[in-house]
Amino acid sequence: MADRVRHIPEATVARLPVYLRSLAELVDEKTATVSSERLAEMAGVNAAKVRKDLSYLGSYGTRGVGYDVEYLLFQMSRELGLTHDWPVVIMGAGNLGQALANYGGFTDRGFPVAALVDADPSKVGQTFHGVEVHHVDDLPKIASDRGVRIGIIATPAAAAQAVADQLTAAGIRSILNFAPAVITVPEESSLRKVDLALELQILSFYQQHSQPDPEASGSRT
Amino acid sequence: MADRVRHIPEATVARLPVYLRSLAELVDEKTATVSSERLAEMAGVNAAKVRKDLSYLGSYGTRGVGYDVEYLLFQMSRELGLTHDWPVVIMGAGNLGQALANYGGFTDRGFPVAALVDADPSKVGQTFHGVEVHHVDDLPKIASDRGVRIGIIATPAAAAQAVADQLTAAGIRSILNFAPAVITVPEESSLRKVDLALELQILSFYQQHSQPDPEASGSRT
Repeated sequence: MADRVRHIPEATVARLPVYLRSLAELVDEKTATVSSERLAEMAGVNAAKVRKDLSYLGSYGTRGVGYDVEYLLFQMSRELGLTHDWPVVIMGAGNLGQALANYGGFTDRGFPVAALVDADPSKVGQTFHGVEVHHVDDLPKIASDRGVRIGIIATPAAAAQAVADQLTAAGIRSILNFAPAVITVPEESSLRKVDLALELQILSFYQQHSQPDPEASGSRT
Repeated sequence: MADRVRHIPEATVARLPVYLRSLAELVDEKTATVSSERLAEMAGVNAAKVRKDLSYLGSYGTRGVGYDVEYLLFQMSRELGLTHDWPVVIMGAGNLGQALANYGGFTDRGFPVAALVDADPSKVGQTFHGVEVHHVDDLPKIASDRGVRIGIIATPAAAAQAVADQLTAAGIRSILNFAPAVITVPEESSLRKVDLALELQILSFYQQHSQPDPEASGSRT
């Protein structure tokens, strides 16, 4: 096996989960091998980029045959750190926090929700979708006891920075921010932001630039 | 003004909302002009790419001065179709649908929520965060009456395809899918997918590849 390459470009890292999803679909279809062209099509990139990206994992495929799907899936999972679970805490037990606690896609993919955390004493002790709400004062203990390395911010925008600071203080260095607010974290931490409105803006671009639709249902006003 | 360029690459379109957010921050700071280097830094891309992307909008900046922030923001908003509101419907009035109805970032940025839509009669007529729940049978009428062009799928995975079909039948051709399911739409429709677990996988990559953290709080086990 090729040497483990540690310096994988950020853009490649961001594509690995997309390849992973495509490989999981191929496994479901009982497909044994896949060409870079097919994988490229599934992931929405070009084939040269797929080959380059996979070469960072030490995967080169076999000419005329392609890549072994199961083995590539294993390599990808290992590289992404998905061969074991990463328990997460969700900060904020409002609608969004509750929705995330109930989001099937997390536990299925190795991110069990260890706890919901809220500052509101009236919420503490309640259980949503099997996940208990803990007080924010108990965050350091929860993080330590359950081995939590990833925190999800699901609070209103105004609370987001304070919550990020609480996560940092509790030793949680990987943060996914859903709040519509710009936050800062220490340099050694990883921060990703999900901007729910950004995708809508992309849709509005295409809607704006599309022709008026002659088949729109109902009466046009 | 330069001719309106209609064929903007998909990757550029996906970056426009990121520039837009940076420009809005600059306006808040009362910054009048911005260099491509500064904008590149804020948006996390390189300066040559910024200049190329903005050239598609007919914006070239002024050598030694940069771009006029307010004018570029206006151009960008117009290009993204954000000079008027795009009412949206949210399909599914569960936790996620309710959370999205309450997400401050939508209405603020020109995507008022016209309605929540659900198949469950017991939810119909309820109001969450000022948004009323309508029955899915009324979707075509709501879409037509309120000029809804964008639909958001916030149902469980199993219902996602049926809901996408209902949106299509109601003449809604721009769909944002939050359900952890692969769905298909007609070719003339636009589909974007928000995969909430994908960002966690990117964080787990960096967590996996980081050194053990000697400062983690609490006792290590």
